Amino acid sequence: MKTVRIGLLGVGTVGHAVARALLERHDVLSRAAGVSLHLQRAAVRDLTRPRPLAREQLTTDPMAVATASDVDLVVELIGGEEPARALMTAALAAGKPVVTANKRVLAWHGPQLAKLAAQRGVELRCEAAVGGGIPLIAPLTDDLAANRITELRAIINGTCNYVLTRMAQGETLADALAKAQEAGYAEADPKDDLEGVDAADKLCILVRLAFNAACTPAQLHRQGIRGLDPKDLAYGRELGYVLKLLAIARRGPGGAVEARVHPAFLPADHPLARIDGAQNAVHVVGDLCGPVMFSGLGAGGDATASAVLADVVQVARRLALGDPVAPPRDSGPEAPLLPMSQVSTRCYFRLAVDDVPGVFAQITKVLATHEIGLASVIQREPGKLGAAEVVLFTYAAPESALAAAEAELAQLSSTRSVLARIRVESSK
Amino acid sequence: MKTVRIGLLGVGTVGHAVARALLERHDVLSRAAGVSLHLQRAAVRDLTRPRPLAREQLTTDPMAVATASDVDLVVELIGGEEPARALMTAALAAGKPVVTANKRVLAWHGPQLAKLAAQRGVELRCEAAVGGGIPLIAPLTDDLAANRITELRAIINGTCNYVLTRMAQGETLADALAKAQEAGYAEADPKDDLEGVDAADKLCILVRLAFNAACTPAQLHRQGIRGLDPKDLAYGRELGYVLKLLAIARRGPGGAVEARVHPAFLPADHPLARIDGAQNAVHVVGDLCGPVMFSGLGAGGDATASAVLADVVQVARRLALGDPVAPPRDSGPEAPLLPMSQVSTRCYFRLAVDDVPGVFAQITKVLATHEIGLASVIQREPGKLGAAEVVLFTYAAPESALAAAEAELAQLSSTRSVLARIRVESSK
Repeated sequence: MKTVRIGLLGVGTVGHAVARALLERHDVLSRAAGVSLHLQRAAVRDLTRPRPLAREQLTTDPMAVATASDVDLVVELIGGEEPARALMTAALAAGKPVVTANKRVLAWHGPQLAKLAAQRGVELRCEAAVGGGIPLIAPLTDDLAANRITELRAIINGTCNYVLTRMAQGETLADALAKAQEAGYAEADPKDDLEGVDAADKLCILVRLAFNAACTPAQLHRQGIRGLDPKDLAYGRELGYVLKLLAIARRGPGGAVEARVHPAFLPADHPLARIDGAQNAVHVVGDLCGPVMFSGLGAGGDATASAVLADVVQVARRLALGDPVAPPRDSGPEAPLLPMSQVSTRCYFRLAVDDVPGVFAQITKVLATHEIGLASVIQREPGKLGAAEVVLFTYAAPESALAAAEAELAQLSSTRSVLARIRVESSK
Repeated sequence: MKTVRIGLLGVGTVGHAVARALLERHDVLSRAAGVSLHLQRAAVRDLTRPRPLAREQLTTDPMAVATASDVDLVVELIGGEEPARALMTAALAAGKPVVTANKRVLAWHGPQLAKLAAQRGVELRCEAAVGGGIPLIAPLTDDLAANRITELRAIINGTCNYVLTRMAQGETLADALAKAQEAGYAEADPKDDLEGVDAADKLCILVRLAFNAACTPAQLHRQGIRGLDPKDLAYGRELGYVLKLLAIARRGPGGAVEARVHPAFLPADHPLARIDGAQNAVHVVGDLCGPVMFSGLGAGGDATASAVLADVVQVARRLALGDPVAPPRDSGPEAPLLPMSQVSTRCYFRLAVDDVPGVFAQITKVLATHEIGLASVIQREPGKLGAAEVVLFTYAAPESALAAAEAELAQLSSTRSVLARIRVESSK
């Protein structure tokens, strides 16, 4: 084999960066792959836009590219569930290796696609699906293979992290989001980012890899950043915490794995607390390697192209050498997921209460009833409306107890409303 | 092949952790490798010490293990130049793949050993040689393969970083070193750490990988941390800098690569400035991926064993599949090293001067003569001995100019002594 012919599905931001790199750094890539990499065909939505490809290489029919007889390797960068899933399935079924950045399809259909790839003896690689240009998938799969991973905590949605970084400086969510959209860090419809859907898709992929837990995103507890108030970030800072949208997975004592995406206060001295703006980072603890962190740009055309092309080089190198694809590893028995109700966390509550005697006694009685210890309290003098704000940081308690306490706190005669309940993560 | 038989050279801290892991997590490792991993033989210095191996597996003759007919894979953990180099050479010549954590041998003899390995069609892997348990070698080789690396800055000596972290709190070097020795972060003879020899060995390995520059440690500019005063760290902090022993490599405009190990002031907001204690971190900038950082434990038995075993799993997996070893990649034309005299850096000077009129005019004249711009100045009122201390932060100038200016400053009639000259790194 003298040339590996690439079929590109989707020439958006990432696809454009991949196409340009294949042309502009042909020497670097071909040396790394040990074979010439040729962009053979590409599927686009709009044939009239300017592209770094000749007109005759382009088509609006992605299935024609995915199954073309003159394509050795399919790169899927359309994103979203369909038709991307069908295209990858068709390419794999046709015996073509697939490189993808598609977290949605992998989160929901990854195991099925991996099975199909194994049946057909071809590769399915997805370094770009989580953490953009940060090497993650390969390090977790290979470099930490000797470890039992005990904990993974990650900032894997750049939009939310950018928004929360601005909110930490006092901006409202709406203002911060507008800035993120101006800066190109948030899409016109930021729903999947703000609601934690994107982070949950990525966590699902990481949880399978790192903990060998079978799951779909539907099984992960997920809460986004809507409804957060810059006040919460300010209160947290007073007590030494930074608010992040975290993707968290941890192996419990019985072997069950907790996996959740939600805003969380993190001690300011934790390495993840210092990841600002649109950056991503994954903090992993292995039982041999100890804590390891990977950080960098989690999105953007060039950064994501870096990861896509690393996979392309790996696949092309193997194709050029004629090596068969290694059979999938035996990952051992699958770990069960721990139901969220049993997950134990520390918690932050912010309440608006009437400024009357006995309020605090009522609140602490509710917490005591549910065996929730109180770690620290902030109470401010009431504002003009006569409502006082009470902030509580609790010790660790199961989600079921915290949720029940929240409901009871809301029912107290002196409570005007429970303004916020946010989980608190420990350093270790 | 049902079993891969491992020959272990050296059962010290790391070797012991590797041996124990091979026994205790046989399931995890064998699943990852797709084949049973068996610790067949080990070479030790002292047969009487307790080991996690049976007596008949042990010998004091490492060459017998390196070339044993019942060993499929040699793990070299003796460290130091000889006999480790000779043992690895013998193992490779006998057609046995070698996994090593030996930065010294790789820094000085890596290319020759790699050539021998390629000739014999076996692997030579060294993930553990730099950064302990942090995945580095594989990510640089594979995951960032599509990038042209433009800059690499690293904290790769945990001893020095531990010492400097304590010195930032006001301790003297001697006190901090004693604490490092107590805590097990520094060896009884810490010369190679303090003088930057260990860091230069590691940088040499990284520079070849990331920049394809042919070099030996002798060609890298190297300066250790001896002679640093906690005063320097305090002055730096006043202006927003943290002092680290950095390993730095950067591709210059003409393609030449600067590579150097020395103490350097780093802006406090740089991610590397926050790497404290015995931790390691490598900050890499690629032209596609942008800045990426890897951090974690750079030393210790278990963390280093994690990296050694990742390599063992990779090699065993290939042996089990019967795949041939891929030929070495064509890395393209080798990059030349930029002579240190031409390397341009910002600089910090601390001078003891007589408290007499005209001192500052003399100093600034010297800097102006060498076209060195002055960025900021700290001057304190003189102490009891009548000597004033002047601290200067300059703009970037070539090393040749900075060295000449230092010599002239020392000769000024008003200068008692040049107490320190330390390079200053920029955020970008």
